[in-house]
Amino acid sequence: MRPENPVFIPGPTNMPEVLRRACDMPTLDHRSAAWGEILRPALAGVARVIEAPADARVLLFPATGTAGWEAALANTLSPGDRVLACENGMFSRRWIAMARALGLEVEELRVPWGEGLPAQRMGEVLAADRGHAIKAVLATHNETATGVVSDIGAIRAAMDAAGHPALLFVDGVSSIGSMPFRMGAWGVDVAVTGSQKGFMLPAGLAILDFRAMAAATEGGGFPYTPPVGLISGLKLSCELLLGEGMEAVFARHRRIAGGVRAAVAGWGLSLCAARPEWRSETVSAVRTPEGFDAGRIVTHAAERYGVAFGVGLGDVAGKVFRIGHLGLLSDVQALAGIATAEMVMADLGLPVRLGSGVAAAQEHYRASAAAMAAAA
Amino acid sequence: MRPENPVFIPGPTNMPEVLRRACDMPTLDHRSAAWGEILRPALAGVARVIEAPADARVLLFPATGTAGWEAALANTLSPGDRVLACENGMFSRRWIAMARALGLEVEELRVPWGEGLPAQRMGEVLAADRGHAIKAVLATHNETATGVVSDIGAIRAAMDAAGHPALLFVDGVSSIGSMPFRMGAWGVDVAVTGSQKGFMLPAGLAILDFRAMAAATEGGGFPYTPPVGLISGLKLSCELLLGEGMEAVFARHRRIAGGVRAAVAGWGLSLCAARPEWRSETVSAVRTPEGFDAGRIVTHAAERYGVAFGVGLGDVAGKVFRIGHLGLLSDVQALAGIATAEMVMADLGLPVRLGSGVAAAQEHYRASAAAMAAAA
Amino acid sequence: MRPENPVFIPGPTNMPEVLRRACDMPTLDHRSAAWGEILRPALAGVARVIEAPADARVLLFPATGTAGWEAALANTLSPGDRVLACENGMFSRRWIAMARALGLEVEELRVPWGEGLPAQRMGEVLAADRGHAIKAVLATHNETATGVVSDIGAIRAAMDAAGHPALLFVDGVSSIGSMPFRMGAWGVDVAVTGSQKGFMLPAGLAILDFRAMAAATEGGGFPYTPPVGLISGLKLSCELLLGEGMEAVFARHRRIAGGVRAAVAGWGLSLCAARPEWRSETVSAVRTPEGFDAGRIVTHAAERYGVAFGVGLGDVAGKVFRIGHLGLLSDVQALAGIATAEMVMADLGLPVRLGSGVAAAQEHYRASAAAMAAAA
Amino acid sequence: MRPENPVFIPGPTNMPEVLRRACDMPTLDHRSAAWGEILRPALAGVARVIEAPADARVLLFPATGTAGWEAALANTLSPGDRVLACENGMFSRRWIAMARALGLEVEELRVPWGEGLPAQRMGEVLAADRGHAIKAVLATHNETATGVVSDIGAIRAAMDAAGHPALLFVDGVSSIGSMPFRMGAWGVDVAVTGSQKGFMLPAGLAILDFRAMAAATEGGGFPYTPPVGLISGLKLSCELLLGEGMEAVFARHRRIAGGVRAAVAGWGLSLCAARPEWRSETVSAVRTPEGFDAGRIVTHAAERYGVAFGVGLGDVAGKVFRIGHLGLLSDVQALAGIATAEMVMADLGLPVRLGSGVAAAQEHYRASAAAMAAAA
Repeated sequence: MRPENPVFIPGPTNMPEVLRRACDMPTLDHRSAAWGEILRPALAGVARVIEAPADARVLLFPATGTAGWEAALANTLSPGDRVLACENGMFSRRWIAMARALGLEVEELRVPWGEGLPAQRMGEVLAADRGHAIKAVLATHNETATGVVSDIGAIRAAMDAAGHPALLFVDGVSSIGSMPFRMGAWGVDVAVTGSQKGFMLPAGLAILDFRAMAAATEGGGFPYTPPVGLISGLKLSCELLLGEGMEAVFARHRRIAGGVRAAVAGWGLSLCAARPEWRSETVSAVRTPEGFDAGRIVTHAAERYGVAFGVGLGDVAGKVFRIGHLGLLSDVQALAGIATAEMVMADLGLPVRLGSGVAAAQEHYRASAAAMAAAA
Repeated sequence: MRPENPVFIPGPTNMPEVLRRACDMPTLDHRSAAWGEILRPALAGVARVIEAPADARVLLFPATGTAGWEAALANTLSPGDRVLACENGMFSRRWIAMARALGLEVEELRVPWGEGLPAQRMGEVLAADRGHAIKAVLATHNETATGVVSDIGAIRAAMDAAGHPALLFVDGVSSIGSMPFRMGAWGVDVAVTGSQKGFMLPAGLAILDFRAMAAATEGGGFPYTPPVGLISGLKLSCELLLGEGMEAVFARHRRIAGGVRAAVAGWGLSLCAARPEWRSETVSAVRTPEGFDAGRIVTHAAERYGVAFGVGLGDVAGKVFRIGHLGLLSDVQALAGIATAEMVMADLGLPVRLGSGVAAAQEHYRASAAAMAAAA
Repeated sequence: MRPENPVFIPGPTNMPEVLRRACDMPTLDHRSAAWGEILRPALAGVARVIEAPADARVLLFPATGTAGWEAALANTLSPGDRVLACENGMFSRRWIAMARALGLEVEELRVPWGEGLPAQRMGEVLAADRGHAIKAVLATHNETATGVVSDIGAIRAAMDAAGHPALLFVDGVSSIGSMPFRMGAWGVDVAVTGSQKGFMLPAGLAILDFRAMAAATEGGGFPYTPPVGLISGLKLSCELLLGEGMEAVFARHRRIAGGVRAAVAGWGLSLCAARPEWRSETVSAVRTPEGFDAGRIVTHAAERYGVAFGVGLGDVAGKVFRIGHLGLLSDVQALAGIATAEMVMADLGLPVRLGSGVAAAQEHYRASAAAMAAAA
Repeated sequence: MRPENPVFIPGPTNMPEVLRRACDMPTLDHRSAAWGEILRPALAGVARVIEAPADARVLLFPATGTAGWEAALANTLSPGDRVLACENGMFSRRWIAMARALGLEVEELRVPWGEGLPAQRMGEVLAADRGHAIKAVLATHNETATGVVSDIGAIRAAMDAAGHPALLFVDGVSSIGSMPFRMGAWGVDVAVTGSQKGFMLPAGLAILDFRAMAAATEGGGFPYTPPVGLISGLKLSCELLLGEGMEAVFARHRRIAGGVRAAVAGWGLSLCAARPEWRSETVSAVRTPEGFDAGRIVTHAAERYGVAFGVGLGDVAGKVFRIGHLGLLSDVQALAGIATAEMVMADLGLPVRLGSGVAAAQEHYRASAAAMAAAA
């Protein structure tokens, strides 16, 4: 990788320098008042970014997103509890495995990778669970492996239609801060994310938001040395996102993603996401022709042009390569990634015409930039 | 706190700017080869810093030291297992509580806070455990609450004398990287520390070292997004420590600590550590006169002079204040802390003569600096 | 301008983060030995980068490149002295004006902007100056306004053929560190540059190199507070350039420039540089169609896409826009700039097909990357 | 020098990290609008910091303070012009030498080093100059070599009393931003300073302020690449100073200086400044006993304790050492410097009792901190 090139992996994202600097703090006595001046707005900022209801409570701790999932499950459910989940990609698969490892009984649905979560089928399962043995529904909002976003509001609607009291747990790791996430409106009980995606920070901070009803433990205080720098960065990240306006942030991601999707169409390729409504605004998984190992694209891009794309994972390993387009990324920088992908595919003998994806993306970016300029 | 003043808390420590910069990296694709160039030397460096045996295995993960303890216990012991531990301060107390929360049965010894761990008594308990029901001995190398270091080698000798096969777990959070820690020579099976003490890094990284026999889980790879920056900092931290030479690092801490202890004697006060051999080189807990609330010193120092000292914890809350002297700290900066403590105690009416502690520390630092200059 | 986009101005260049950090130093006592450890390798590094002869002497001082020119002239020539110079762009024009302001008599030649310096005509003037009234020849190695590089070796050859003893002053501001500059081989007596171009540092440091015969003043020491940070950056910049190898650095710039020129041809446009041998490797001045104000491209790129290109200056104002391609810039980032220029020209109604320049540049970068990979 | 220790030289000063960061900017196109957003408040801020009259004009350029002096003289006076100046230290001596080098005729007064400028004598000379041949009075506000501040208001009063129209040039390099400087009230026509003293920035920026009547040249715009980062730092520096309030800034320097002077008295030594009203708030030159080479203190402090003090210059070389106390420096850090000086003097056999200066300074800082707390 060349440090002057942006990365095109679906997180960790390219980080604004101001956020990196906010993280890089000299030592602060975390028992001093100054610490509260950092922590409080960080917590409040996260709540606003995810549109948490007033009674929600944000927890931050130095951990991976995976540990965040574990903390969410372990602090609210008990071994033997039954949960409903559906695998539609690698990350939902891992969450199901973790739930089992924690002793939960998983009522597991499956849809083909590339599809969104089946709200209707989930509702049917819940309706059939008259005894309310199912304590929680686990939903992956944005499947990073397939570039598929699911309709969490529809799942909530299905739960409500079934009159089922299960808690709704949502993995928002690769959606929160980049795509609409309406914790309150969607009735999400526990939301999980990390610092290294939409918040554009280094990895290392798990971010959880519990509705009061879901919070089994009463937190308060940090009974350990907090990662002051990361939380200082989180405070500023929320300020930047909220200062831009969350709807503007979402529109920006949608615009960048639109150009990437136009390029994919320009190349004559298709997305892993099977339907338009499932297309993620943060990552596109691009299907390569049958018989071609998509992993070669990622390796060649790294070795020859110093650019990082994402490999396919699990069931779509070798079948897709992924272009991350979340976090700090402009239209101009997206074009650099698209142009690189074209060079790579041409180098590897795929029938992609140089400039074809770029031109399609340029049309998209020109039109949307003109519309923004006209609106301003 | 004023940012131009060093902190005198027992961790997180003052950080060298080069380490902060090593942590502050642009996004790196952690699936690229560049990541290995950071991770491998970081792991090898930690092993050298703690003098790990060849078969030991270092684990790094984004977590607090507390979570590091938990991971150490949870990955090697099972609920119902019996462990031997001794409370001699706040951090040993917390570890015992955690062990119980994990379902372990704790054979608990107690000594007064201010004393080191009783190797002989521990040996007697082990000798009496003829059935070897005790699976592990938990030892806090340096009690940060009392400024007491314990003789881990003596505990190992007692274990060996008893012919007992229990594992030896050592909390080296506030000793590793600052005081001698001979994992191999002491037969330590699991050592735990964090990034924010002797390694002089931001908080957020748990560092564990398992001997092969203790490693229940076979790790390898990072099944999640690693905290690349912190581990990049850890790599450089190890290079700095090993480049200086660990014995030189230990001597430096001993020298700085010696000046602080001379100042305490100059003030006519005493340490919480009950005997000279228990005096920590990383933190001094200073007993204040009967009837005086030691916490006022910490508050007043912060409010009036912008300097952070450590409060007393647990059984010695209000009875001691703590001066941290680990990590990046020169003799000159230690004198600033000592001079500040003098002003604070005088402000609060304690019978401390201005300049008395400073002069005692100056004598210590002059003599030791002269000896170093003569040796060089 | 958006901070995530590279700049495409012909200096100051995009700066590697390591160089910015090397400049950002805490206060150093510049009377301490540590200062020599920075200054000496910086001076030696500059001498190596420009292939200075052994008797040359590098001077550094906080100043603009313009002040560097002034210092070069003022310290070696006296009012009334005669110099030979040729205007072929904005920067040569300014140098001539400065020489006059300093009281020098300028024998001025002119060639059309877009042409290189006329070595043959210069030789003829010198041959005719039998009394050797001309004390110095002023030559602009790379005309930043027109993207024209001149053959300094040919000028030296013409001077030698004329048997003329005049000194040879060369403005290498936008060439040194990016294009071959052979101070010794070309018999350059005084070379002038600044920190913000090939050295990829912030502006603020003038860099002069005098051959012994030209050095009227005996310097030594800094009789003022030196800009320690900038010179620390210069030290590292030289290490990076020399570590890569100057020929590799030149090849890298040639490669990036080649892609930009391919794109210009792909657009059906032409360069200001009138002949291939005059094409600069650091900046391309692109002629726009008759009747179109080229400045609009620069304004529109900045306002709509947050990308900085260079405007036309002086006689070519409104007729060209400039793409800087020196300093930190990869093929991938150059494609971002090319794609942006395409969008801008299309937005402004110029008959440029989207993707046309990108595809031409991609071909160039693919082929050259493949050749490099094959060679490695 | 050890990087964890503050410096105690009279500039460059210890720099707040926020200012260093403000200077460390990625490349900005200085022809873009963003540049004006940096430059304008920087210029306005400087004018407010020095209490410039409304018609004054601030000039910034990458240069040393020395070059700033030269620019001030060269742009307002002509060779042959007569100026009045008085040597009372090294920097006034240098300014006189420079004026002569520029062809000015200097009417030179002298007072012993350690005294302030003699306003009355200067007035007498001006009164005697009935033909107003003297075009300018050159005054060094704060003599950094001797730690002597002069009364510029008194010089203006003497000029006015003499009814003399000469311009008043003031070197405020080591006073502006730290001690009261009332450009308007004092009728200063040209004020000169640099970035590396009261503004707490890296060296490299000359800062000039001309009253309209003194400004021979009409500037405007930067006809060269400006040092964007330094000026960005200057903008923030002014914001910090003005945000704190200039009178509070002055009081802070006075308080820190007071502790240093108390320490000097505690050591039984005296200042170079011959009278209390001449004592500088930014630097103290401390006289050492007859027959002792004061330079040894500076060398020993650097070598043994890694701390930088200032040597004596010119006529007081070997007779004084200097403690800088301007810029970022707390009472606590000043005590570190005082304690170090004590150790050094004791090491070198001077009859200084350890803790004596520290205790005197502690009394000063305790009392003033208590007064501030009471006022707040």
